[in-house]
Amino acid sequence: MPMRRIRLTVEYDGTNYAGWQRQKNALAVQQVLEETLERLTGAPVTLHGASRTDAGVHALGQSAHFDTESRIPGEKFSYALNALLPHDIRVTTSEDAAPDFHARFSTCGKRYRYLFWDAPHAGALNRNTHSHSIYPLDVARMQAEADALIGTHDFAAFAASGSVVKDTVRTIWRADVARNGHEVVLIVEGSGFLYNMVRIIAGTLRDVGSGKLAPGALKKAIETGNRLDLGVTAPAHGLTLMKVFYSTEDI
Amino acid sequence: MPMRRIRLTVEYDGTNYAGWQRQKNALAVQQVLEETLERLTGAPVTLHGASRTDAGVHALGQSAHFDTESRIPGEKFSYALNALLPHDIRVTTSEDAAPDFHARFSTCGKRYRYLFWDAPHAGALNRNTHSHSIYPLDVARMQAEADALIGTHDFAAFAASGSVVKDTVRTIWRADVARNGHEVVLIVEGSGFLYNMVRIIAGTLRDVGSGKLAPGALKKAIETGNRLDLGVTAPAHGLTLMKVFYSTEDI
Repeated sequence: MPMRRIRLTVEYDGTNYAGWQRQKNALAVQQVLEETLERLTGAPVTLHGASRTDAGVHALGQSAHFDTESRIPGEKFSYALNALLPHDIRVTTSEDAAPDFHARFSTCGKRYRYLFWDAPHAGALNRNTHSHSIYPLDVARMQAEADALIGTHDFAAFAASGSVVKDTVRTIWRADVARNGHEVVLIVEGSGFLYNMVRIIAGTLRDVGSGKLAPGALKKAIETGNRLDLGVTAPAHGLTLMKVFYSTEDI
Repeated sequence: MPMRRIRLTVEYDGTNYAGWQRQKNALAVQQVLEETLERLTGAPVTLHGASRTDAGVHALGQSAHFDTESRIPGEKFSYALNALLPHDIRVTTSEDAAPDFHARFSTCGKRYRYLFWDAPHAGALNRNTHSHSIYPLDVARMQAEADALIGTHDFAAFAASGSVVKDTVRTIWRADVARNGHEVVLIVEGSGFLYNMVRIIAGTLRDVGSGKLAPGALKKAIETGNRLDLGVTAPAHGLTLMKVFYSTEDI
């Protein structure tokens, strides 16, 4: 059989994994999927993911591709993989992809969600998906703050220390904050995100929403490029990679 | 100190417990709470819960009471308990209760939620809270079926086999089915529910919604009293005890 390229959409509960990317001493989602693909196809497989999500971060719409000589029809990979995978990793779609499709380099944008739970006590049922805030969050204030993100800016201040990326200019076209009861939902969409950028945005919005940080922090940090103008990085478990965009028509 | 009665509202992820009620060879939520209360108060405690939820069933609003000579102010018990409890059990409210308040016998109603996920593949992130249906569910058909539940009926057909309850008449005043994307939400409220009754209702609605069972099954079973007119009991993990009512004003 000739080599073919297959694209997967992957959902995972990141609670029990050391993130997406293969690690030496801890189990990563990529490793579980690669080992399962090798059992299925009988050959070594390298899986390329769109986003290297951190330990504890979840995905509802991670995207990945691999090359294989297997005869399994593209749309059947999801069923075959799900029969072998642990229940906290699911392949929701699989399909043949063009030979020049690349899960990481063909992206034109991503959507992330960050969930807060502002209540006197943390939730039991949502403890792995919602970041608890004992302080009430003012959603209108958070939305006004988030509006400063929209546009094309140099987000140098929003990269975790130690990040080595040179070009820190990104475009954000959506930053919405909404409340459902005790749940506060942040949705951010943009052309790309620096390492920890969404968690730094979420932490800053949380601190502005609780009154710990004065409004205007995001705007100021875009101008100064200074990480210290922003709030503490929000915990990993509140973050979910929702969707990877490959066409401007999807956005 | 004189004996006082304390009322708790309890949230739990039932995934890792053998249900609410204390068991000999498996860990129950009641046991964890009783042991934590004993550490806190230094005396044996018997906790009375409103509902004996099954293994795997969750609660956002279980209600319970206990008697104690502790000096801890009523509203402080939640904070003191949550500092000691595992993260999959949270006490969301605590308060002093009237001496004649009884979490189980003072109830006048309960609200349950059952969650389905109808999609080609099960979810990873919601695998412990949503019951997967590979068959699409017709929500309008499910709602029309559920309407037959409303009112005061003899629900003898809706009790799990082996149930020893004599009076099987119950009143149901709410049975709503709604869809959010792949999620189908059933909310049922009534004066009380027989053992497995909500899961039998959920399983029957699912089977009517997927076309496996002809519409009219709930109505027929109420008339015949025959368990065989109903669908298979739906899995425990889709069920959540949402609220226990103690006053008709709450309903």
